[in-house]
Amino acid sequence: MSIHTDAQTVIQRALKACLPDQAVRRALEGKEFGSGRVFLVAIGKAAWQMASCAAGILGDRLEAGVVVTKHDHSQGDIPHCTIIEGGHPVPDEGSFRGTRAAMDLVRDLKAEDTVVFLVSGGGSALFESPLIPEEELEALTQELLGCGADIVEMNTIRKRISAVKGGRFAQLCAPAKVYSIVLSDILGDPLDMIASGPAYPDQSTCQQALAIAEKYHLHLSDQARELLTHETPKTLDNVETVITGSVRELCAAAGEACRELGYEPVLLTDQLCCQAKEAGSFLASIAKTHQDDGRSLAFLAGGETVVQLTGHGKGGRNQELALSAAEGISGLADTLIFSLGSDGTDGPTDAAGGIVDGTTKARLEEVGLKIHQVLAENDAYPALEKVDALIRTGPTGTNVNDVAVVLIKR
Amino acid sequence: MSIHTDAQTVIQRALKACLPDQAVRRALEGKEFGSGRVFLVAIGKAAWQMASCAAGILGDRLEAGVVVTKHDHSQGDIPHCTIIEGGHPVPDEGSFRGTRAAMDLVRDLKAEDTVVFLVSGGGSALFESPLIPEEELEALTQELLGCGADIVEMNTIRKRISAVKGGRFAQLCAPAKVYSIVLSDILGDPLDMIASGPAYPDQSTCQQALAIAEKYHLHLSDQARELLTHETPKTLDNVETVITGSVRELCAAAGEACRELGYEPVLLTDQLCCQAKEAGSFLASIAKTHQDDGRSLAFLAGGETVVQLTGHGKGGRNQELALSAAEGISGLADTLIFSLGSDGTDGPTDAAGGIVDGTTKARLEEVGLKIHQVLAENDAYPALEKVDALIRTGPTGTNVNDVAVVLIKR
Repeated sequence: MSIHTDAQTVIQRALKACLPDQAVRRALEGKEFGSGRVFLVAIGKAAWQMASCAAGILGDRLEAGVVVTKHDHSQGDIPHCTIIEGGHPVPDEGSFRGTRAAMDLVRDLKAEDTVVFLVSGGGSALFESPLIPEEELEALTQELLGCGADIVEMNTIRKRISAVKGGRFAQLCAPAKVYSIVLSDILGDPLDMIASGPAYPDQSTCQQALAIAEKYHLHLSDQARELLTHETPKTLDNVETVITGSVRELCAAAGEACRELGYEPVLLTDQLCCQAKEAGSFLASIAKTHQDDGRSLAFLAGGETVVQLTGHGKGGRNQELALSAAEGISGLADTLIFSLGSDGTDGPTDAAGGIVDGTTKARLEEVGLKIHQVLAENDAYPALEKVDALIRTGPTGTNVNDVAVVLIKR
Repeated sequence: MSIHTDAQTVIQRALKACLPDQAVRRALEGKEFGSGRVFLVAIGKAAWQMASCAAGILGDRLEAGVVVTKHDHSQGDIPHCTIIEGGHPVPDEGSFRGTRAAMDLVRDLKAEDTVVFLVSGGGSALFESPLIPEEELEALTQELLGCGADIVEMNTIRKRISAVKGGRFAQLCAPAKVYSIVLSDILGDPLDMIASGPAYPDQSTCQQALAIAEKYHLHLSDQARELLTHETPKTLDNVETVITGSVRELCAAAGEACRELGYEPVLLTDQLCCQAKEAGSFLASIAKTHQDDGRSLAFLAGGETVVQLTGHGKGGRNQELALSAAEGISGLADTLIFSLGSDGTDGPTDAAGGIVDGTTKARLEEVGLKIHQVLAENDAYPALEKVDALIRTGPTGTNVNDVAVVLIKR
């Protein structure tokens, strides 16, 4: 098996493990719900896939469900479920209507009932029911964005003017149990941040919220100011949370595939957040150092790098990482680096990422391209395309960040 | 023992292992030279320390020696040796005189004799004997710099107009044996590059040299053009080379110290070359991911990062790496990252590097400093100084690049 065949296997295995339906299946299969009724609420951009899979597994155990996803993200009916599409990234009437339907569903449940709560990225906008008029919410959001408040400060305010954020949705479900299955798209899986944590205890306090209002001289109506004094839940005894299909599992699945192919996997990080091309350089340095270790190695780095824009070309962070790495591993035998966005679309392109080896740099030079120039122009896509170094998977239906892998085959 | 005490131990142990005298000692002690005479030639910025140590070990076995080092780098007499100081980075009359003295020393030796050849950084300028007039060499160097020739092309030309570069010094020593001890200051230890490889076979050919002259339309005298047709040695049977005190040994010594302190060392790379602050971010991501592994870990990265200048502050690459890492590990317990230049002077400062932990970011904010702003101003030194996060070792007398270490104590 060539190292490139190995890489394709790793890519397919990693992506498959993080598909919403696979992730839901792992979390739901074999799960016991006792004698009570089972309801379903699914929110976010992957809500349809997650709900569709869950409905299949739950079968007639499922009493009723509400699915709130982004416009054009529904792929058809799901048994026992109402599907409502809403706006993302800006909430719209659909978002509010869907959220109200979910709130209605979980009212007046009994302690033996369970709400299977499926959460994916985009939930903050799609799952919202403001406690102040919509226009006021909009104005306040703009004010928070403009005053220099950081994301933690913004969330401290926003959770208090929402009927569902900051653990309040789980509070609505009580006394019923909530089984929350979270598809994480934020590094480090901060459960209070993903979809603004509808089923996760909020750590911020009313005092902090009032201090922030004071600090930025926020223009608040009496109603809004009053809401800031209402505490969010600090504990939620009725909630069980499973994080699935996160970048951690993306890395784990890639590592496991590497191991089965005979590589010793080394997880570097699942929280990578530096510049894409510098990450590529770092990974290439690792590849160079371990050339003579005498065994097949796989170094894995998951996360989400950033692109520094210096040009006007076409590319994405995974393509830049791979292209930059090609410079460092030039000339090395049986060494390969790829970087892949789990959603299958890296930047504004139809590629999922890039895959390079010791010959890539020379092949680029044969067609007149210098890596540092291409990177300065942020033009990785056409360059990698010319030397057949793009990864194309098509949209995958999930988004659990990226994974970059160094393979050294011995 | 606190994690900070551990870090100080690692720093001291790593630096000590790479001091020129320690490096020479490892390479020379127990070495047998047979019945012939032993001569010594030492070149480069660390030549005095290396020669001083070698003379001490060789004692009366040492017949005679020549030491060519940078102006003001001699620290006194060395038994049996002539010390000559020359110009660096631009060769001067002292460089040429010292080089001629070394050439005179090794002429007419016998097959049973040995030349202990001590090589350190700066040797390219300090050890030179041009085969064309000095003014012509200077003009040609300027022309090569201006025409866009890369470093490999420049060296291909320069080795042919030098009496000592490109393996020719070892050729002069023949039939005597050459025992070459190299203190490497270039990543990856390219022996043909360090001091321009006076005792290392040259892989470039006359045809390549002539092609380069043609490509850039170099203005060459008849004499210089004739010299390009003289081949450099492709094999050197009389040379034995030991690389010592390289960044590899810096990393190995740091890793060994970590192991003895109870950390499991993981060498990431000894060829790091990306942007300093991005490397810091990458290392912090690694630290975050391995917080809960349940054992004490040390991740090591050696090399030489680069600083992207966007401001006018005071700092160095190791300080920027550490400061950037402080952002990522903020709040983590018993986790520390340091980065250290082995020469003890990081950038134009009196610090060797920076050392940060989970409290550094908060302590910087207490004194009104935001990490991303400080980095944008390239002003790491005063910031780290304010929170007692500088590493100060004083000049160490060696330069084998840098090492950065992540410590996680459990």
